Amino acid sequence: MAMDKATKRAKFEAAWTRIRTELVDHMVSEGFPREGVEWYEKNLDYNVPGGKLNRGMSVVDTAEIIKGAALDDDEYFKAAVLGWCVELATFFLVSDDIMDTSITRRGQPCYYRAPGVGMIAINDSIMLEGAIYFLLKKHFRGTPYYVDLLELFHDTTYQTEMGQLIDLITAPEDHVDLNKFSLEKHRLIVIYKTAYYSFYLPVALAMYMSGVPASYTLAGKTIEPYKVALSILLPLGEYFQIQDDFLDFSAPPELLGKVGTDIVDNKCSWCVNTALAVATPEQRKVLDANYGRKDAAAEARVKEVFEAVSLRERYAKYEAEVYGRLNALITEIPESAQPSTLKREVFTSFLEKIYKRTK
Amino acid sequence: MAMDKATKRAKFEAAWTRIRTELVDHMVSEGFPREGVEWYEKNLDYNVPGGKLNRGMSVVDTAEIIKGAALDDDEYFKAAVLGWCVELATFFLVSDDIMDTSITRRGQPCYYRAPGVGMIAINDSIMLEGAIYFLLKKHFRGTPYYVDLLELFHDTTYQTEMGQLIDLITAPEDHVDLNKFSLEKHRLIVIYKTAYYSFYLPVALAMYMSGVPASYTLAGKTIEPYKVALSILLPLGEYFQIQDDFLDFSAPPELLGKVGTDIVDNKCSWCVNTALAVATPEQRKVLDANYGRKDAAAEARVKEVFEAVSLRERYAKYEAEVYGRLNALITEIPESAQPSTLKREVFTSFLEKIYKRTK
Repeated sequence: MAMDKATKRAKFEAAWTRIRTELVDHMVSEGFPREGVEWYEKNLDYNVPGGKLNRGMSVVDTAEIIKGAALDDDEYFKAAVLGWCVELATFFLVSDDIMDTSITRRGQPCYYRAPGVGMIAINDSIMLEGAIYFLLKKHFRGTPYYVDLLELFHDTTYQTEMGQLIDLITAPEDHVDLNKFSLEKHRLIVIYKTAYYSFYLPVALAMYMSGVPASYTLAGKTIEPYKVALSILLPLGEYFQIQDDFLDFSAPPELLGKVGTDIVDNKCSWCVNTALAVATPEQRKVLDANYGRKDAAAEARVKEVFEAVSLRERYAKYEAEVYGRLNALITEIPESAQPSTLKREVFTSFLEKIYKRTK
Repeated sequence: MAMDKATKRAKFEAAWTRIRTELVDHMVSEGFPREGVEWYEKNLDYNVPGGKLNRGMSVVDTAEIIKGAALDDDEYFKAAVLGWCVELATFFLVSDDIMDTSITRRGQPCYYRAPGVGMIAINDSIMLEGAIYFLLKKHFRGTPYYVDLLELFHDTTYQTEMGQLIDLITAPEDHVDLNKFSLEKHRLIVIYKTAYYSFYLPVALAMYMSGVPASYTLAGKTIEPYKVALSILLPLGEYFQIQDDFLDFSAPPELLGKVGTDIVDNKCSWCVNTALAVATPEQRKVLDANYGRKDAAAEARVKEVFEAVSLRERYAKYEAEVYGRLNALITEIPESAQPSTLKREVFTSFLEKIYKRTK
């Protein structure tokens, strides 16, 4: 636990080297020709290991917090396999980039735009999903929580796709219609598309692996820990995404590391939805005429409306409120040193990383 | 079992009406907006029920053969749910059509070419896969074979995608290179892309549902029924696809119901691979110069080579050989009236439908 961030990341990446070998060796053992195996290696290398790895590493962190001690080598590797399965679960981003006609991801061309790939990226994306179940079978078959892991990945994948569907039909890049937007729809998209898989999935995986039961009694109180986790992690994920939306508008590019494009890309962002909810008829006209246009002057007019409706203050108020609300929920969890029970730190560790972040 | 084909199909389709309602109701109950639910309904209606339904209905047929009697209502519906899960497993065809830039499927525009759909078809395709696991959870959770069903779908999906990958990189429509082709590669593609999911998957699902154990002893002989099924159904699936390839070349369009396009589409077909294996250097030159060209004269020259290498005779010889070989394998299965054991009829019913079909 005292490990610094770079060492932690290097350890997690070392686990990937082993997992990657398992995936490739399996394809070789099935008798697949060299060019097929090499293609799969390229798919894995391009799409899996180069991200921030926050989601994947949070499985390991959570397992460690629940245990209350460092994981042994076997526990570490199991948690890392689950963590890399979460990273593999970003397989749909490979397809999302095609659907969104995105240009770059993680500072390089989107995979479908890499030389010679094109639409084969769709099949490659589904193969990354297939790799998840191959790994779960190889490493968790026979554990009492194997089915729980499978169902968690099934449920989360379905939820994420449902969220993506609503996002796609609400905010197509080539057809702006702000009547389709609302804070309620934003909330639904965010919960389904982001919160389940980025926040609940890694924590619940670690809980299953750590033997946390469906319910237990502590100090005379019956706890249903997966429900508790969900009740905190969904609003936490929503907070994370709202913050992301707000930073896209408000953060200086030199601090954010990129230029925000939500306004020109017609994104169903918290910012525009909040502005829509309070805009005067005149402000609404400005938004209708300028949102989602590939035009810097139009973008500037939208930003003026955002400032005029005091979006910065509204965000600050929201952030203070949600931070208080989440802390209150976390404080309701009874503290216990017992292994295989929920710990407050599981949630505070997320919350403190997110609260008032600037990039 | 005495039911005629149309009645059987109507009964199977009635089960879909119920299953479709379950899928849609779930989305409604999660609070999704009307336009999202309607979109999902359109996805389901366009892509799931309109096919030949052979794969799906073979789950019901197989369950009935293993039971040796008509299924009761509950058994029928369970088998039909599994059958419709197999039909949902054709989800990757929705994406395949994009990757192959196909124009029509089942006599209508491919889904991605339907008005307003486009690349959203990719997410819709993955949602059909998600529906499989939703249905399995709803109807089979708690059965002793639930995990077997999940693993079967996972394994089959992964196998199908691996086969599709090799097909995509071996025979891209826009770049002809016959050096990439071989009968060995054809076999690999066919087994992985078609045989597992079209033949082994429905039979194995019915076997699990019917309580067929991993092994049993009959007349002093130990049987591993899933291995037996695999050893027959993979070559059977290969036979089916080779026949499909041969009919594309040889069957009169008025009998086949479509005009064969494998030659102009650069398909890695059994026909071209067989011709390549025996072609003289001159014939090889003709194939290299004319295969995969969108040109009727080029196609005719390829067909001349196919005739010159006696492809019709070679196919007839192959068909006689494989029919004999499969019958021999089937005859090795000990006959038994015991429920939950493998029956020869499971396989003969497939084989007799395929043998010497003309369309």
